Amino acid sequence: MAMQLYSYFRSSASYRVRIALAIKGLDYEYVPVHLLNNEQLKPPFADISANKLVPLLQDGEHLIAQSLAIIEYLDETHPQPSLLPGDALARARVRGLALDIACEIHPIDNLRVLRYLVHEMKVNEEDKNRWYRHWVESGLEVVEQQLAGSPLTGRFCHGDAPTLADVVLVPQIFNAQRMDCRLEHVPTVMRVFGECMQLEAFSGTQPSACPDAS
Amino acid sequence: MAMQLYSYFRSSASYRVRIALAIKGLDYEYVPVHLLNNEQLKPPFADISANKLVPLLQDGEHLIAQSLAIIEYLDETHPQPSLLPGDALARARVRGLALDIACEIHPIDNLRVLRYLVHEMKVNEEDKNRWYRHWVESGLEVVEQQLAGSPLTGRFCHGDAPTLADVVLVPQIFNAQRMDCRLEHVPTVMRVFGECMQLEAFSGTQPSACPDAS
Repeated sequence: MAMQLYSYFRSSASYRVRIALAIKGLDYEYVPVHLLNNEQLKPPFADISANKLVPLLQDGEHLIAQSLAIIEYLDETHPQPSLLPGDALARARVRGLALDIACEIHPIDNLRVLRYLVHEMKVNEEDKNRWYRHWVESGLEVVEQQLAGSPLTGRFCHGDAPTLADVVLVPQIFNAQRMDCRLEHVPTVMRVFGECMQLEAFSGTQPSACPDAS
Repeated sequence: MAMQLYSYFRSSASYRVRIALAIKGLDYEYVPVHLLNNEQLKPPFADISANKLVPLLQDGEHLIAQSLAIIEYLDETHPQPSLLPGDALARARVRGLALDIACEIHPIDNLRVLRYLVHEMKVNEEDKNRWYRHWVESGLEVVEQQLAGSPLTGRFCHGDAPTLADVVLVPQIFNAQRMDCRLEHVPTVMRVFGECMQLEAFSGTQPSACPDAS
């Protein structure tokens, strides 16, 4: 039985999992959850999701939450092509890059955080956008520094095959572009982004290619 | 040569790594980085850290950033006792719980985010504290729901030995208590916290036991 992926076309965490599934050539059913319509907060999705967040992967009777946990699961259960290098130090570098985005940029600009800023903190649209761009621009600078400063960087973030780091980086760039973030200061990041987008696994799963794109 | 851990006593991400090192019985040199004095932003630390965040682990000539990447590295290089179960689905559950804290609670309440709220968004102290508590209290409810609702929960978050999930949970509870967050609504979380604190690996590495505690 094919897996089911609960996804929203613009969710960058969902996009990460779509890329990973595509790299591994795994078939799945796409189940849209419309975040702006709050479908994540209502049944049927809310009945099966503890954190009320997409992505959520259903594999048989099992539900797996959190995009990075899902991707590690896919990498362990379908090892080829691997999304992590074989060496422990290299794996730490790749995971560290991924977490510099997945922990230090993405959650702070997540929909529910932006909503809290606007509705509870009464932050205006301009300040909200400034907040968004600040975390993207400063966070990507951290990634740039690591990519530009290391001989381990290759065609992709780590060597010449895509890894978890690229899988997390590309969706963040889509968000950055949509929100008109500055990107001139991260040339290595953008070079890697360009390399990734030449691959069908990245381009064919982008937001505009999703069944629920609007 | 012993490893070096760049840490701050109150940094909950540093505390995660201190627990993991203690569970594995690994010796290390504690290098304090005083966050409130901005030592993370100045040399010598800023010269070796791309993201200007603690923890940072030095193993020989190698630097490893991001607490979860560090802990996975320690688990791969020093497998016993393991911080992840053997089965892929169980590993996904443990990683998912850890990420529900490490991505959905902790970064939003991080020092640099709180500083941005106060200095750039001109948020007052009361609203800042309300923000802090909101993400802790709602985020821990997500963890509670998963722990209380699963037969896989044991003495600890997953079974009867501590895992990555407990390693991430306990420091978050320390933060919650310090900020007077509500915790009555997460009884299973607090039961597990109590179990963990009976272990020297958790109690002996807590903030007040650190060399730089003040």
